[in-house]
Amino acid sequence: MDPLERLTNVFQKFPGIGPRQAGRFVQFLLRSSPALRRELAEGVRELGSDVHQCPSCLRYHTGKKGACGICADIHRDTSLLAVVASDTDLLALERSHTYQGHYFVLGGLLLLSSERTNGLHIKELLSSLPARIENGLKEIILAFPANPEGDSTAIRVREELTGFGNPSMKVSMLGRGLSTGSELEYADPETIKNALEGRH
Amino acid sequence: MDPLERLTNVFQKFPGIGPRQAGRFVQFLLRSSPALRRELAEGVRELGSDVHQCPSCLRYHTGKKGACGICADIHRDTSLLAVVASDTDLLALERSHTYQGHYFVLGGLLLLSSERTNGLHIKELLSSLPARIENGLKEIILAFPANPEGDSTAIRVREELTGFGNPSMKVSMLGRGLSTGSELEYADPETIKNALEGRH
Amino acid sequence: MDPLERLTNVFQKFPGIGPRQAGRFVQFLLRSSPALRRELAEGVRELGSDVHQCPSCLRYHTGKKGACGICADIHRDTSLLAVVASDTDLLALERSHTYQGHYFVLGGLLLLSSERTNGLHIKELLSSLPARIENGLKEIILAFPANPEGDSTAIRVREELTGFGNPSMKVSMLGRGLSTGSELEYADPETIKNALEGRH
Amino acid sequence: MDPLERLTNVFQKFPGIGPRQAGRFVQFLLRSSPALRRELAEGVRELGSDVHQCPSCLRYHTGKKGACGICADIHRDTSLLAVVASDTDLLALERSHTYQGHYFVLGGLLLLSSERTNGLHIKELLSSLPARIENGLKEIILAFPANPEGDSTAIRVREELTGFGNPSMKVSMLGRGLSTGSELEYADPETIKNALEGRH
Repeated sequence: MDPLERLTNVFQKFPGIGPRQAGRFVQFLLRSSPALRRELAEGVRELGSDVHQCPSCLRYHTGKKGACGICADIHRDTSLLAVVASDTDLLALERSHTYQGHYFVLGGLLLLSSERTNGLHIKELLSSLPARIENGLKEIILAFPANPEGDSTAIRVREELTGFGNPSMKVSMLGRGLSTGSELEYADPETIKNALEGRH
Repeated sequence: MDPLERLTNVFQKFPGIGPRQAGRFVQFLLRSSPALRRELAEGVRELGSDVHQCPSCLRYHTGKKGACGICADIHRDTSLLAVVASDTDLLALERSHTYQGHYFVLGGLLLLSSERTNGLHIKELLSSLPARIENGLKEIILAFPANPEGDSTAIRVREELTGFGNPSMKVSMLGRGLSTGSELEYADPETIKNALEGRH
Repeated sequence: MDPLERLTNVFQKFPGIGPRQAGRFVQFLLRSSPALRRELAEGVRELGSDVHQCPSCLRYHTGKKGACGICADIHRDTSLLAVVASDTDLLALERSHTYQGHYFVLGGLLLLSSERTNGLHIKELLSSLPARIENGLKEIILAFPANPEGDSTAIRVREELTGFGNPSMKVSMLGRGLSTGSELEYADPETIKNALEGRH
Repeated sequence: MDPLERLTNVFQKFPGIGPRQAGRFVQFLLRSSPALRRELAEGVRELGSDVHQCPSCLRYHTGKKGACGICADIHRDTSLLAVVASDTDLLALERSHTYQGHYFVLGGLLLLSSERTNGLHIKELLSSLPARIENGLKEIILAFPANPEGDSTAIRVREELTGFGNPSMKVSMLGRGLSTGSELEYADPETIKNALEGRH
């Protein structure tokens, strides 16, 4: 396989990128300056060396080795722990400027077609709980997307937490209902049911 | 103006129909059978004669003159009243098979650009309340869409209800949060805020 | 079936209209003024009475009974006859302000799944040709869309014209190639082939 | 700026990639295997070393240094030269399996807002012509997209070729008309004009 094809194949593995756009990426790079190509190659290489995984919440960060900025922040509320699927979802919660608790990044969602949880850091979550409870943890929020994968992950994590056993600790889920901009006419029955049950 | 143009103009007033599709409607009717054209003309004419507005909830129905099927149904829960913007929203709530209370169709939403509430049946709503309260009404659900028009209508109706004064009656709104299928990554901060506050 | 449902069903037959939009049309009419409903019902009724089919080109028009404005225009070029599928396609050709010849509306396209030509006015086209040839007709342009239905209609009409037999009369098709705004990258191989063959 | 942000910025320069997708690329790479990251960094680096520009048509290729496969192919027709904007457009013409001549990659299109032709290899095209004419060149096909940039580039290149002066050499453009799938109803007047003029 020639270098152009090989690089095209790598780009095709990127999320949301098909063969045509992968080819355009390669053409773009061919006509880019050597400086930009070097910056890209360097940047990709650095991900393996200058980026660290926070040992506490498991998200990736580029601070100095050790706990990330959120985990190290003594002003965050240790009574709340939001379990999220990915770093991206963690950032979405941060953007809402509402949540002041801690996070744990599970590293993915349970696939519907499979019972296997490999890749998901459920064990790491469980083994971190005693220290968190000692620190005042009162509620675990399963902050997963409102889709079947999110729901089955929530069911599984909830089971594991039950097995872990701690009656005083609450396990909650994000509220469901009308999202901003929703019109009733186009809302699915499930959403309307949630909106009616969650009325306040 | 010739008949084709005149009819095209009428179709352009239909919701979501531009000049091109209006023209295609006319071409479609030109080549349709006289029977279909007659059915359409008759059907439109009947809207004025065979369709009645329910005096209780103000929605349109085609039963015999008088209260509609829902208002006449003695098994519906008289302690709940959902105020909706339109017949279409009423049907969306019915499709969820969750709600067993009564309805009131306001006939629209408050426009943001205007303080005027004409067209909205707020007076009719208020004047129907004494009889409803006698019948056991305990909660009014403002079931409006989760958009600025829905919100300002809710504020206005709530004000009018306060003026009306009844401390024992609850006024609620539909729950907000993640709607079915929502991913956190694409949810707006307001929706995430609502989902966090509405966690359970 | 109740009147609302019956009218919804009629609107669902309109081109491009599904059940949901058909329902919105009915709701729109319910809340419209009686004047608008009357205008619509009248307009539909008039299609059967005040609109005539031109006996020469078979398009619908609203002038006085008899030949339409284009067929009656003595300044149009009688040496050219464009055969089009529909009134809408005829108007598209007129909008280009390039074509000064006459038209014939075939009334549809040959469906791929069927050999049947009923509904298509091929016989009427053929029987009109002797008079047209006497009037100077030199070229028949098969102005059909560039899709499989258009192509198979062109093949069929061409066969019938051959059977009809007139060696001096040319039968042509619309040029194929890059349409305005086309980028080579997204053009299909067939279009590029046509663009290369039609280079000038 | 931290490494994640810096790499996100590089991906944002990719064609069609906004900040959100750039961020997802970085998250994807963070969770990818070190092998895939290495393959990407290597592949990008190789573009500068293992990929050569053909001295004859100026496209990029990965054969051994020197003329590319098409320019070296003695079975290609030396009487035809297609001038294209980019390697991507060259490949689009190849995919049509119609064209057997040679190519020249101009390296872009003339921007409408500017008279400047820097970056475009017009000089290189002109200086290659004497040898090509000696080899039998009879026709230059300006194979540009059917948009304003393509048109103004064609006008400019044609001017330069005139200055160059060779009465026996034809300069042609790709045919315009209905592209595959076009319906007359949605075609713009310019395309219909071209389709009528290019009828055959």
